[in-house]
Amino acid sequence: MINVGIVGGTGYTGVELLRFLAQHPEVNIQTITSRNEAGIGVDELFTNLRGHVAVKFCHPDEAKLDQCDLVFFATPNGIAMQQAGSLLDAGVKVIDLAADFRIKDVAEWEKWYGMSHASPGLVAEAVYGLPEINRDEVKTANLVANPGCYPTAVQLGFLPLIEAGIVDLDHLIADVKSGVSGAGRKAAIHSLYAEATDNFKAYGVPGHRHLPEIKQGLAKVAGQDVGLTFVPHLTPMIRGIHATLYTRVSTNVDLQELYEQRYINEPFVDVLPSGMHPETRSVRGSNICRIAVHRPQNSDTVVVLSVTDNLVKGAAGQAIQNMNLMFAFPETLGISQLPVLP
Amino acid sequence: MINVGIVGGTGYTGVELLRFLAQHPEVNIQTITSRNEAGIGVDELFTNLRGHVAVKFCHPDEAKLDQCDLVFFATPNGIAMQQAGSLLDAGVKVIDLAADFRIKDVAEWEKWYGMSHASPGLVAEAVYGLPEINRDEVKTANLVANPGCYPTAVQLGFLPLIEAGIVDLDHLIADVKSGVSGAGRKAAIHSLYAEATDNFKAYGVPGHRHLPEIKQGLAKVAGQDVGLTFVPHLTPMIRGIHATLYTRVSTNVDLQELYEQRYINEPFVDVLPSGMHPETRSVRGSNICRIAVHRPQNSDTVVVLSVTDNLVKGAAGQAIQNMNLMFAFPETLGISQLPVLP
Amino acid sequence: MINVGIVGGTGYTGVELLRFLAQHPEVNIQTITSRNEAGIGVDELFTNLRGHVAVKFCHPDEAKLDQCDLVFFATPNGIAMQQAGSLLDAGVKVIDLAADFRIKDVAEWEKWYGMSHASPGLVAEAVYGLPEINRDEVKTANLVANPGCYPTAVQLGFLPLIEAGIVDLDHLIADVKSGVSGAGRKAAIHSLYAEATDNFKAYGVPGHRHLPEIKQGLAKVAGQDVGLTFVPHLTPMIRGIHATLYTRVSTNVDLQELYEQRYINEPFVDVLPSGMHPETRSVRGSNICRIAVHRPQNSDTVVVLSVTDNLVKGAAGQAIQNMNLMFAFPETLGISQLPVLP
Amino acid sequence: MINVGIVGGTGYTGVELLRFLAQHPEVNIQTITSRNEAGIGVDELFTNLRGHVAVKFCHPDEAKLDQCDLVFFATPNGIAMQQAGSLLDAGVKVIDLAADFRIKDVAEWEKWYGMSHASPGLVAEAVYGLPEINRDEVKTANLVANPGCYPTAVQLGFLPLIEAGIVDLDHLIADVKSGVSGAGRKAAIHSLYAEATDNFKAYGVPGHRHLPEIKQGLAKVAGQDVGLTFVPHLTPMIRGIHATLYTRVSTNVDLQELYEQRYINEPFVDVLPSGMHPETRSVRGSNICRIAVHRPQNSDTVVVLSVTDNLVKGAAGQAIQNMNLMFAFPETLGISQLPVLP
Repeated sequence: MINVGIVGGTGYTGVELLRFLAQHPEVNIQTITSRNEAGIGVDELFTNLRGHVAVKFCHPDEAKLDQCDLVFFATPNGIAMQQAGSLLDAGVKVIDLAADFRIKDVAEWEKWYGMSHASPGLVAEAVYGLPEINRDEVKTANLVANPGCYPTAVQLGFLPLIEAGIVDLDHLIADVKSGVSGAGRKAAIHSLYAEATDNFKAYGVPGHRHLPEIKQGLAKVAGQDVGLTFVPHLTPMIRGIHATLYTRVSTNVDLQELYEQRYINEPFVDVLPSGMHPETRSVRGSNICRIAVHRPQNSDTVVVLSVTDNLVKGAAGQAIQNMNLMFAFPETLGISQLPVLP
Repeated sequence: MINVGIVGGTGYTGVELLRFLAQHPEVNIQTITSRNEAGIGVDELFTNLRGHVAVKFCHPDEAKLDQCDLVFFATPNGIAMQQAGSLLDAGVKVIDLAADFRIKDVAEWEKWYGMSHASPGLVAEAVYGLPEINRDEVKTANLVANPGCYPTAVQLGFLPLIEAGIVDLDHLIADVKSGVSGAGRKAAIHSLYAEATDNFKAYGVPGHRHLPEIKQGLAKVAGQDVGLTFVPHLTPMIRGIHATLYTRVSTNVDLQELYEQRYINEPFVDVLPSGMHPETRSVRGSNICRIAVHRPQNSDTVVVLSVTDNLVKGAAGQAIQNMNLMFAFPETLGISQLPVLP
Repeated sequence: MINVGIVGGTGYTGVELLRFLAQHPEVNIQTITSRNEAGIGVDELFTNLRGHVAVKFCHPDEAKLDQCDLVFFATPNGIAMQQAGSLLDAGVKVIDLAADFRIKDVAEWEKWYGMSHASPGLVAEAVYGLPEINRDEVKTANLVANPGCYPTAVQLGFLPLIEAGIVDLDHLIADVKSGVSGAGRKAAIHSLYAEATDNFKAYGVPGHRHLPEIKQGLAKVAGQDVGLTFVPHLTPMIRGIHATLYTRVSTNVDLQELYEQRYINEPFVDVLPSGMHPETRSVRGSNICRIAVHRPQNSDTVVVLSVTDNLVKGAAGQAIQNMNLMFAFPETLGISQLPVLP
Repeated sequence: MINVGIVGGTGYTGVELLRFLAQHPEVNIQTITSRNEAGIGVDELFTNLRGHVAVKFCHPDEAKLDQCDLVFFATPNGIAMQQAGSLLDAGVKVIDLAADFRIKDVAEWEKWYGMSHASPGLVAEAVYGLPEINRDEVKTANLVANPGCYPTAVQLGFLPLIEAGIVDLDHLIADVKSGVSGAGRKAAIHSLYAEATDNFKAYGVPGHRHLPEIKQGLAKVAGQDVGLTFVPHLTPMIRGIHATLYTRVSTNVDLQELYEQRYINEPFVDVLPSGMHPETRSVRGSNICRIAVHRPQNSDTVVVLSVTDNLVKGAAGQAIQNMNLMFAFPETLGISQLPVLP
């Protein structure tokens, strides 16, 4: 049993962390902080938790985070980098669900995120928490940078092809669609119901913060830089990411076999039988990534379809998966609930 | 004033035809047929038309279609090809909103649509009703094949690039997202509310009937065959098509200028200012196609975004646009209603 | 042709006013104000208007509203009451789409709206703009208080019963459901897509600002105070109001006949045939109110169903209907577009 | 550990039964039947179950249901009444999620359901499986009639008031809103996405099959007949029921206290603090019913708000709750997952 703290738990990743942690057999939720909601019961804000989460939001200045075994940062970008250092010094492990420690090139990070990095020295130390690539590093990490939602779905989709060295690395295309919860639980006109419903649009085509994160991850696997066109879209659903990936392959390798073998031992990656199309609701509320690979009309263009729940495998669930690894719990402990369909 | 007949008006393209035609100043709706709904008032089935459309559905055997000036077929595939010939012989003009006359290669059509063509001789005569390409041919046509919803959005998006001769024609990619009304008003489990809501999926990746139609259209413009990867997706909205198109360009031509010039005189194609992203609701209920062109990170990959309302510019509205051309009415007559937003 | 100004046109009632006015044959949109969006083209904010509305938002201090024939206030509550007086003095007619002039009892208004009234003297002068009750007064009014969305649907539903004097006036029940656009186009967490989708809730059961407005309207018709339990609900749709009304009747009057006769000459109220149930989409985007009346199991409880589009008959459309009356245009001019279905 | 069979598991109650049973520690899913899907893996139809449910659909003629300890009927109405008798004779316990055994008055049942009852003799024996009323009877039952979705939400909402004997029993009103999954997973035009989205309507006002079931349940508690006006509505969400109940009370009893005391020991009924409004998403995917009680403006009209997930507490979850009682498992075993929000 470990004591866990959550910094900034009033967003959607916060409520999802709480949903899973409240029933995790090895976790005690010791403290959760919020500057605005201090003194309010967590289950007053998130009524789905009534009867299952007794803690109240606590002001950051009063939270004894250094008495936790692990602290999750479910904060906006730029918070964890200010506080992680002292927690690590106090022997507390840290998982940041925001972007502060994801990009190894600090100058690149500062360009995309528009602020100076408060702890550049910790960036190198942080482990990028995509267990399907970095499982062993996560196990011994003290500081984990939890991947972004788009980068999780895109990297898991491209991974087998890039590891196999059979694709044109200069012209990868990721056409990705996200549910609206990806924009977070913050008041913003473009996220209003009446703006986002019965509507579909691309955004950020000139450049999106997840682009350098994906490129870094794929380049590390490829052993060289990659060229990537990344187009995110907003789709009228609460949860879910659907990545449609395009790349050219040079050989006639059995792609179905390649994908199935790559993920055969992964508890949270499911390769669909040949010819199928994954749908986002098939992973709703769960930590699963489902993938299908196609080669339409036997052309040299491969199409990979990869779906996740952006709040679970793309955020809170993957964070708990990383926690399980860091504390030597079974990797699936507390996050094996079945997807909710319909 | 012309007399118009509609065959098979119980679907979504039917109700849209009626919505526009009911207030078109040059049209009298003379007859509308339905085998199943014969005797029922059109406004009993489609209550939005109450007070504005007085006709009843009429059994096909009793409809005097040959007394019309124009007949629209808003039927499933395979009906118009059986009846168009005799109507044309009687001097009635025909617009088929289904696919019977879209593909010039009859064998190819039969392969994709799984039936023998009943009037192969009429296929050559039919004009493909995309006014932005074939305006002059439409004006003198007696038989118009109204384009499919996906093909309209994709062709209008690629058109300026292909006409300019500056793209890699072997590797075009069309990642297209459609609202659920595209599946029509027919009882089918996969189109149920509880199946399609809060869900996103690709379908038909191995092959979709609109693929040969798009390829035919682009090839005609290019003057050669084209290679196209076409991936349709189902997105939880009622109406709307969003095409995200990818291709490589070989030059540094000013793409914004290219698109604006190409469509400067088109009443129903709107090129957005540089840097913008069109959204489907900005054309909801209207006959407009809005397009934006991007070249992210100055790479050689161009991204074109093209949106339409699949039931209007992708079906009924375009059919009336064609009607206006065929009868020398102003092209925008009766179809210039503003989009409904939010 | 009249010159029209709009104060505060960046919300949903604003964009709907513009959609209708842009194609109204007797209106010139002379000026539209917004403190925050001054200098921005209206069609940059509302891309559905591209090509049809050329005006830019203008800073309130620079708008020459006193040169208009009519000014619409599409502002939050509390603005029109500060500016209406000087406009009226300058001979400009005013229609307030907010609540400033709806409640005749100023103390009551101040209690529900939590502010002092800036122009209590104008309240008595204002005409409550529900044409089905006050048509003649509207025709000669200089200041019209446009009704709220809930009050429009509820009053039109109860009206025939109360006029007939056959119901228990002490125990009226209005169970009303609204789409999310009713909350306006302002950043608020409870109106976010991810909060409001796939969710249904009542709100304001202890008291809602539209309660005194409805009671005032019904009391005026009844000639005495009425007792009303009003429960508003939020339903996951963009537009639409559905009022389900319950009351006890004391006689065996033919209710269907009563309703049909009451509204036989009303251009925007449609009484459905006996046994039918109106649906909100049947009025989507239109100025129509559709009503059905039921008496289940022949008990003494009558059930009335009344639907409107909250942004049209519940706001912008009704405002233009009032404008048409005030300027002696045909009442339906510019607002007879058919509902968009599906 | 018990062996469980499911008859007709291809609908939404079927997939929900499977989602819970697959992780129930005392259940082995032995067989599941479907005439149409025989031979297909359950997880092919319901991809959310991939990796967790290994059984295939089995033809009814080949299912050895009599070797089960318990059989759930998740079938259309009229199936369980034909098969329950022989299973009971074989010592198999039966829970019917359809309506065959809910109404004690067989003639009344036959009137509403339009068929002759095949086993009228079993009707008296069946226990109505609403544990909050009939817990002890369920524990010893061999045949349980699982309540309908509307009746569950309405009865739990009215129960404390009726037990306290303080309401006008002749004029109860239940205005109830349901998500579209309540119509089941069957192809029907009115349940299509493009029909049900962005739309709200009442239906069945003249009479709905759940009316006699609710009246029977309330009458049993009241000890006399009750008068009920029941108006069901269809709301655009996948899951969820929201009952808004109206009744007049004759005393000044503390309603909040009354409700809290009535349900203080109920594991699946949650009375909200005074002044709150429950929302359906707060119970999404869970077996919980949340209730709030209001008395607006201190009038004599009480408003009760009651929400459930129609597929869980309104169907599959309650069925498993009944199973737990029948087999002396802890009542919450396997159905205590937290609601999924957002």
